[in-house]
Amino acid sequence: MKIVVVGSIAYDAVETPAGKRESQLGGSACFFSTSASYFTEVGIIGVVGNDFAPSDRSMLERHGIDTTGLVEVDGKTFRWTGEYMDDINTAVTLDTQLNVFGDFEPTLTESHANAPYLFLANIDPNIQLKVLDAMISRPKWVASDTMNLWINIARPTLIDLISKVDMLIINEDEAKQLTGQNNLPNAAKAVMNLGPKSTVVKRGEYGASLFGKTFSFAAPAYPLERVIDPTGAGDSFAGGFMGYLASVENIDEESLRTATIYGSTMASFAVEDFGLQRIKNLTKSDISERFQAFTELTRFKPPASISNGA
Amino acid sequence: MKIVVVGSIAYDAVETPAGKRESQLGGSACFFSTSASYFTEVGIIGVVGNDFAPSDRSMLERHGIDTTGLVEVDGKTFRWTGEYMDDINTAVTLDTQLNVFGDFEPTLTESHANAPYLFLANIDPNIQLKVLDAMISRPKWVASDTMNLWINIARPTLIDLISKVDMLIINEDEAKQLTGQNNLPNAAKAVMNLGPKSTVVKRGEYGASLFGKTFSFAAPAYPLERVIDPTGAGDSFAGGFMGYLASVENIDEESLRTATIYGSTMASFAVEDFGLQRIKNLTKSDISERFQAFTELTRFKPPASISNGA
Repeated sequence: MKIVVVGSIAYDAVETPAGKRESQLGGSACFFSTSASYFTEVGIIGVVGNDFAPSDRSMLERHGIDTTGLVEVDGKTFRWTGEYMDDINTAVTLDTQLNVFGDFEPTLTESHANAPYLFLANIDPNIQLKVLDAMISRPKWVASDTMNLWINIARPTLIDLISKVDMLIINEDEAKQLTGQNNLPNAAKAVMNLGPKSTVVKRGEYGASLFGKTFSFAAPAYPLERVIDPTGAGDSFAGGFMGYLASVENIDEESLRTATIYGSTMASFAVEDFGLQRIKNLTKSDISERFQAFTELTRFKPPASISNGA
Repeated sequence: MKIVVVGSIAYDAVETPAGKRESQLGGSACFFSTSASYFTEVGIIGVVGNDFAPSDRSMLERHGIDTTGLVEVDGKTFRWTGEYMDDINTAVTLDTQLNVFGDFEPTLTESHANAPYLFLANIDPNIQLKVLDAMISRPKWVASDTMNLWINIARPTLIDLISKVDMLIINEDEAKQLTGQNNLPNAAKAVMNLGPKSTVVKRGEYGASLFGKTFSFAAPAYPLERVIDPTGAGDSFAGGFMGYLASVENIDEESLRTATIYGSTMASFAVEDFGLQRIKNLTKSDISERFQAFTELTRFKPPASISNGA
């Protein structure tokens, strides 16, 4: 197993201007692993209730995802209810039922604990730390996400966790909230001062920005004429990003840049349909074509020289 | 003269988190022409009062800007008072005194009326139409800007004007307001359905997007750690964009892409100091270096292939 992800597995009730779904498979670990599965072997660490549909487990397994860490316990699966109505870019949470996710105790097999890549999806930083500590040897690359809730209620633990990861993959608002910096490059610098060597700031419909100590890289969002359901876009980004990184030998500036485009590619697919509908049905050539479309979207030629001027 | 610009010449009173200026040279025509002057010969059509400082006219002339169309009349120069306080990206207008700009009647010399490039900066669309009609032969390329005010109070005239230009260069919010489309590519398509062959949507700190009938191009904003004064960024963008276009022989997709990066380059300089302070003091190598920084900011390599997948 190349990547282990720990995160949520959820049944989501979602309403967007395009329609409504009462109960669809979601959660950060599902979006991440499905997205990453097109690039490398992934294993999930998570918990579900006994309402978890066998067909959902088989869907993950059909993508080659290792579900030995997907533990089923008595009770109901985590459930999130949200809508994107006035602004397609902003989720309004209507209800959260933690259910079995409330007492989640991650357990790793030896195979998980030896994985070279680890993604700590948005979850209580105490659990993120526990999983990191449970790794037998320090993975080659650890990335984590977080959200406003943990910045508010668990800041010291979160800061401790961030100091131990290689990269923070975080939303723009949360990067600013975490660091108290209103300016994007300054917020990224402040994140790196907490420990990570680099950070990706996710900017929704405006794309994603990658910052390293000596460089920065900006990727646009793919200009889609119709966004159906933004749920899971950020985790699909992280899955494409980490999936690509894990599939190449070197983690260097070049591969981080390319990974950012793969992340953007997978995020652009995720929002094209409800839940996992689109990203669970991709082909390798869908992904290559969309990657190529990003190349077209961003390419320009340097001019010979400008004719006037001082 | 390669480009003629018609627009405002103003004395601005501006407050930003970085400080306060009581009366600095501004206005769309000044930002546009100063920015474009690094690329080609520009002439201004505009009006000032007899409070207009000779040193401000000489500053423009030192940049090779033709000021024969900059008419001085009895009264005071247009004055805008604004601040950017809670959000550096959003101007709050505190006061507008049109003064001599209220009775502006543009007059073109033969040299103006024969220019191959025309930029109709944000101004009453009746005046934009008058200037376009006064051109002896239809220029090779006409671009225009506008603002929410004209969309609200002069929509039919504005739609008529837009149907006659080659390109609309417009803010994202205004593109959406003009077209009633909330989605960026759909708004751009709706703009092109009004007549223009292409459009640039300016997105402030998120960069700029160029749309043609068969392609789109996304440019990020340059990640500046300190934005001093956003006033004039959009007109500086347009100046770099049109200035570069006018300096090359062909207007094709490639030159529009490169022009978008020059526009972004000039906008990034504009916000680095108050008013025209930064963009009036650039060298050719400042511009080349910043253009090169945009190349670095956006470059990525296509991968060999992805290893997993269907």
